[in-house]
Amino acid sequence: MPFARRHLLGLEDLSNEELLFLLDTAASFKEISHRDIKKVPTLRGKTVVSLFYEASTRTRTSFEISAKRMSADFISLSASTSSASKGETLLDTARNVAAMRPDAIILRHQHAGAPHFLAKRLDCAIINAGDGSHEHPTQALLDLVTIREKKGRIEGLTVAIVGDVLHSRVARSNIFALRALGAKVRLVGPPTFLPPEFASWGEITSNLHEGVRDADVVMMLRIQLERQGKHFFPSVDEYARYFCLNKQALSYAKPDVVILHPGPMNRGVEIASDVADGPFSLIMDQVTNGIAVRMAVLYLLVNQPRDVVEVPPAVERTAAPARLRRRVG
Amino acid sequence: MPFARRHLLGLEDLSNEELLFLLDTAASFKEISHRDIKKVPTLRGKTVVSLFYEASTRTRTSFEISAKRMSADFISLSASTSSASKGETLLDTARNVAAMRPDAIILRHQHAGAPHFLAKRLDCAIINAGDGSHEHPTQALLDLVTIREKKGRIEGLTVAIVGDVLHSRVARSNIFALRALGAKVRLVGPPTFLPPEFASWGEITSNLHEGVRDADVVMMLRIQLERQGKHFFPSVDEYARYFCLNKQALSYAKPDVVILHPGPMNRGVEIASDVADGPFSLIMDQVTNGIAVRMAVLYLLVNQPRDVVEVPPAVERTAAPARLRRRVG
Amino acid sequence: MPFARRHLLGLEDLSNEELLFLLDTAASFKEISHRDIKKVPTLRGKTVVSLFYEASTRTRTSFEISAKRMSADFISLSASTSSASKGETLLDTARNVAAMRPDAIILRHQHAGAPHFLAKRLDCAIINAGDGSHEHPTQALLDLVTIREKKGRIEGLTVAIVGDVLHSRVARSNIFALRALGAKVRLVGPPTFLPPEFASWGEITSNLHEGVRDADVVMMLRIQLERQGKHFFPSVDEYARYFCLNKQALSYAKPDVVILHPGPMNRGVEIASDVADGPFSLIMDQVTNGIAVRMAVLYLLVNQPRDVVEVPPAVERTAAPARLRRRVG
Repeated sequence: MPFARRHLLGLEDLSNEELLFLLDTAASFKEISHRDIKKVPTLRGKTVVSLFYEASTRTRTSFEISAKRMSADFISLSASTSSASKGETLLDTARNVAAMRPDAIILRHQHAGAPHFLAKRLDCAIINAGDGSHEHPTQALLDLVTIREKKGRIEGLTVAIVGDVLHSRVARSNIFALRALGAKVRLVGPPTFLPPEFASWGEITSNLHEGVRDADVVMMLRIQLERQGKHFFPSVDEYARYFCLNKQALSYAKPDVVILHPGPMNRGVEIASDVADGPFSLIMDQVTNGIAVRMAVLYLLVNQPRDVVEVPPAVERTAAPARLRRRVG
Repeated sequence: MPFARRHLLGLEDLSNEELLFLLDTAASFKEISHRDIKKVPTLRGKTVVSLFYEASTRTRTSFEISAKRMSADFISLSASTSSASKGETLLDTARNVAAMRPDAIILRHQHAGAPHFLAKRLDCAIINAGDGSHEHPTQALLDLVTIREKKGRIEGLTVAIVGDVLHSRVARSNIFALRALGAKVRLVGPPTFLPPEFASWGEITSNLHEGVRDADVVMMLRIQLERQGKHFFPSVDEYARYFCLNKQALSYAKPDVVILHPGPMNRGVEIASDVADGPFSLIMDQVTNGIAVRMAVLYLLVNQPRDVVEVPPAVERTAAPARLRRRVG
Repeated sequence: MPFARRHLLGLEDLSNEELLFLLDTAASFKEISHRDIKKVPTLRGKTVVSLFYEASTRTRTSFEISAKRMSADFISLSASTSSASKGETLLDTARNVAAMRPDAIILRHQHAGAPHFLAKRLDCAIINAGDGSHEHPTQALLDLVTIREKKGRIEGLTVAIVGDVLHSRVARSNIFALRALGAKVRLVGPPTFLPPEFASWGEITSNLHEGVRDADVVMMLRIQLERQGKHFFPSVDEYARYFCLNKQALSYAKPDVVILHPGPMNRGVEIASDVADGPFSLIMDQVTNGIAVRMAVLYLLVNQPRDVVEVPPAVERTAAPARLRRRVG
């Protein structure tokens, strides 16, 4: 199998062959969610735990539905109710979870590198569901599946990524994978979101019309209004005036352009409602493909062959529970 | 089948035949929860999502247990952790959920009409679990099942509904269905809770003894103490003095009266403890019947034949994962 | 079967035979979590509800994974979202849950005796997951399983329990069971945590070196920093200076000593990091054994024969849903 990794920490290190295999596998899982009975026994008896240190419904729900459609048991932990609030370290919390013998831990954490840190120390698959401003690999994979489903390819496409590229883990994972697969990336946004060193990843511009000109794909990023106070741009209105993807801006793109947005959208801020709901928008397809991508990722990681773990020998039994044995067996 | 609707938004629009069919179906599901193995495979491979914009344990838990006893996958979303808190619109949040291809969304929302709004726009069954002060159809159905189980009929019964009728979605759904099925409804409470136009629904009175006189059923409503500050009544003590259902008040009702309360109860406010726990109380039966009602509703809505949705054609595959196909199939 | 109880409320009342049978049963369940398919059908069609009035991830997660590995349906309720926050009494909330016909309720509550109170009043198995400063039986059982797995026995061992014994339900359950099974218990901590009457349970000392001298097992308790304000000890630093289990203190114990901690750990407060992660630590084994213990407890309680409950007779049906019957059956 072309994908033999133990973890999915990011897309930066993946080979083209691995990336394409992930996309193909995801595409092949899509039809399960269109069946009348949307469930396969593939991961029956497997335990998948989500451990989220940042609030998220969308991603957690997508993983939960994916796991359940594969017949895995899914357990959801959030930092607000977890021992983290009692001062426990990330490693101690995660080790505790790992000692319950899950097959995969899906981690969302505010610090870049947190999943990599755990992957080196725990004996179960780690899936990065967003680490700080670093990577969010399953989101980028679902973007790629969606683009490829519509365009038939990634190679040779011009993809404009618009918005807060600096803080976006979605952008980062996409940039790595798009470039690896031969797309041309253009980064568009206010200069405060586009430090000069980003030029090594692609053309950078602060002019939206120039940025989307002849683009095959426009990938909008969410403006995190909660960060606005940090003065990356003067005001939401001002941001919208220059960077909101409206019909006029879209007219600069290719006639068969497609539009992506990771959600949740700020309608009227980074994207106009008629564009978000218009014929070029693939935003709902992204969500649907998210299920297929996460089913594929769980399938590939959880079913990797494991080191055989020896069960500690049982102590001498006081009363042999033979009846019980039969029941359980 | 006499019930061919796609959604359950309220009881106001249902025909008598539909109402009775719902009650019959619920009654036939009750025995499942009394089995040793309380689970049927009916909804295996179906996905049911609860999307709650108001806190609720009771209703959400009842739906969750019902769905799981039908073998459906159940995913619970609450507004506090959902993208709603990031400023996303209800429609965008719900569309996102719908794009993950659930079979039903159970919605609780603070605004009347929210489920109707979604039902027109989404491609999955919507179940109203309470919309503002409008309707709460499954609660009223479980009340009706409980009454009919004990009395053998709805028609011809006198039902006194006591308390904050103005703000009660439970009252409203019950009034619609009770009247449709031929019961006589009496509305009892302080005048501030009983605007004159309610007279078209039944006799209205602010005298508790008069209100419960010769009643077959007394349906108490919860006083929402959190609303008291809005001055609908002078004080909790004063309310209790005039409207608490105690033994003395109950003596005015028929000798075989039955008492309902949707919970959670304010003991000593709207209902005296000895009445709540006494021989005429069906309060626990209501909860038990809630499971049967929700199993029936999920069964009827989720199993409706759907429009066939075409799976988008897969793109050319880089590497044909034939082995995977066999595993998944 | 040597364990025929309906509830697990504490270890104080259990006979030696019952305790040993629980430990044996737990040991026999351990291997399930080491299988490739970690799931048995034993509790299929059973409903297990956790009702937690105090925050806990660790214990709730352990029960949830255990229940799911036994194929039970698991529903999680927490007090912050439950009707408790609307002023409902514990008994009313629990009765409501019970009316949904679960097979077991797992209760965590801030008041000692809460599970005993419910056990007398409800018709389903009650499992105490911590009641005030009273008992936490499954935690103590997993400690015992872990000790016995390593030492081959409990009888004759010297066990030092170190820390806030006064407020620790973990300590209390362990003291009851360890003494019943013939271990010698030593209680170690500041005098404010060790009232003189505790002397009836075992030797008491405020000198850590003396306390761990020749111990076979050192069981550390968590310092609840949130209680510090109540002045049980002058400062965290001062506490750590005298009671932190570091290598030097550990050198007073037997050369094959084992160390337990219920987690979450305050590293550097009650336990030094190199000791927590060192070769004598069984802290991760405890967590792994927690799954086996909770599987065993659920198995033993949920599968007890029940009083047969008669289903209320169905009312006359308006339309006989024969087709439905076949589907559901």
